[in-house]
Amino acid sequence: MTTKDAAGSEFRYDPLRACWILSAPARSLRPGTLLNPALIDSDACPFCPGNETHTPSEILAVRPASSPPDSPGWEVRVVPNKYPAVLDAVPSVNDARRRGGFGSHEVIIETPNHNEVFFDQTVESLTTVLRVFSDRIHTLRSDPRIGYVVIFKNSGKAAGASVEHPHCQLMALQSPPTDVSVKVKALRAYREQSESCLLCDLAAEESRDDQRLLELTKRHIVFCPYASRVPFETHILPRAHTPSFDANTDAELEDVARLLSKAVRRLSVVSDELAYNLVLHTAPWEVGGTIESSFHWHIELLPRLTGLAGFELGTGTFINPVTAEEAAKRLRAAESP
Amino acid sequence: MTTKDAAGSEFRYDPLRACWILSAPARSLRPGTLLNPALIDSDACPFCPGNETHTPSEILAVRPASSPPDSPGWEVRVVPNKYPAVLDAVPSVNDARRRGGFGSHEVIIETPNHNEVFFDQTVESLTTVLRVFSDRIHTLRSDPRIGYVVIFKNSGKAAGASVEHPHCQLMALQSPPTDVSVKVKALRAYREQSESCLLCDLAAEESRDDQRLLELTKRHIVFCPYASRVPFETHILPRAHTPSFDANTDAELEDVARLLSKAVRRLSVVSDELAYNLVLHTAPWEVGGTIESSFHWHIELLPRLTGLAGFELGTGTFINPVTAEEAAKRLRAAESP
Repeated sequence: MTTKDAAGSEFRYDPLRACWILSAPARSLRPGTLLNPALIDSDACPFCPGNETHTPSEILAVRPASSPPDSPGWEVRVVPNKYPAVLDAVPSVNDARRRGGFGSHEVIIETPNHNEVFFDQTVESLTTVLRVFSDRIHTLRSDPRIGYVVIFKNSGKAAGASVEHPHCQLMALQSPPTDVSVKVKALRAYREQSESCLLCDLAAEESRDDQRLLELTKRHIVFCPYASRVPFETHILPRAHTPSFDANTDAELEDVARLLSKAVRRLSVVSDELAYNLVLHTAPWEVGGTIESSFHWHIELLPRLTGLAGFELGTGTFINPVTAEEAAKRLRAAESP
Repeated sequence: MTTKDAAGSEFRYDPLRACWILSAPARSLRPGTLLNPALIDSDACPFCPGNETHTPSEILAVRPASSPPDSPGWEVRVVPNKYPAVLDAVPSVNDARRRGGFGSHEVIIETPNHNEVFFDQTVESLTTVLRVFSDRIHTLRSDPRIGYVVIFKNSGKAAGASVEHPHCQLMALQSPPTDVSVKVKALRAYREQSESCLLCDLAAEESRDDQRLLELTKRHIVFCPYASRVPFETHILPRAHTPSFDANTDAELEDVARLLSKAVRRLSVVSDELAYNLVLHTAPWEVGGTIESSFHWHIELLPRLTGLAGFELGTGTFINPVTAEEAAKRLRAAESP
């Protein structure tokens, strides 16, 4: 992808909030207005088969060996984001207040079917999507300029989606953003103090006490976290210590796919018009070096039923009107739609 | 206000994110559904004159001496929030993971006129509103159970408003929430290192360099912050070191009212249907003791033109598609609607 026409992206530091923001003018070029980005429907969908030339050239695709790149026939397709928040060529600035917005911003098109509902996909095809996640993380780790990858999904307009067609986004950066650094610090401190992993211990605790538990398999646990930020927040994580998502075997990915499908289906039962974010957190690494071994990969599902208002933006404290215990109770009851 | 029927509020700690959330089941009793709280319009508005009995009894009102409490005739009225996120009677818990959700959650009804637009209020009446802010902060500081007050406004549905009638909310807590503690830490560290105040220095810097400047009076500065989280974010703060908002004289409040009115009017010009949050940050204090002298009060105006999506929720890093410099340029051009 050429980025030479895009306005420069940069990270800017707010010394008062001790936090970076990402100034990304190229994002403002998206179709529609800033206030109301056009939700792209099936008529002009750049993610539908046959429209492959409407996206930048593919980075990776799951497709038959006989089918050429950027043509129909694929099951999952990864392309550069046309309106990237981070760029592969940025002016080299790196001071206390400013860093170049270097990185890779990708779109993972989960299915060729524009109207496919996430949890109606077969476990097999969801497993393929998760394997693509895993493959991208693995590949990007060998890029000497990258030290962190996050994969996220904005589903529904209230969750920030601008294209209907089922897709995730991947952002690869030089180093982990503020909240992820906080997590790493917490995990390292816990390990130092207790010679154990905070999330391993939490998984064990939640599996013994069924108040917030949704699913428990041999390998994974699904539960509503004690300090849920939003109603029906749901987390999925491995019970055994696993820093990076790309360490998963095919059998493990299949178990995650099955649990993820069930979790999103349950959320859709408690909400008429479900909008949600999914965030896959995986271990950052030293650029060109070892991964952060204290990390424990996890998936956060954040339904967007309530708005974030002045209190949340001003204080960083989410007000959640549904307790995690009540949420788990209602989600457990939502067995079948 | 009686809170005995309300479900208990509690702060819950997330050891991974090193952050508290506020679990507040009483908020789920608001009219409408969780997904879609009813936006209360003029027909049944509990904040309109004549409907004073639809709210809990008033805490404070600006009204003629002859007019009795909870009757029409007021200019500004402060009442307890009917669906409080924090309560005045909570079980006394205080451990590493849980604290009682103690505090006061108030509504400041800014005007008797349901359809009054913020920036169409006279500077005189806005000054009266700001004086009420100041009075409540001052009064709450003498409550031996309170150590922090924040006042915020959710204007428009995209900003989390559930009642049309112009109003702000006040939340008084035992101690400052996570992001405010981070600010205090940053301000203390800066003072220790440079024997100066970060925000005093920032105000001086932004007043010299007009790239992000919107207004400069003898006492105050209005600008788009360098690391703006959202497009057209606007900050107002005193140029001289002033920790607490209630230290302001009448002349100072009038200057803030004039600047605030102009700032919101400008935001309304760049957005067809402006939704925004206003947050007034004032110094926390040691319960029953001295205020945090390193603090520097400031007002944040956060237009809600763009949604917060998975990247923001997952990483704590806002992606802002409009640079602060471009925002200031467009806001300066928006002189008159």
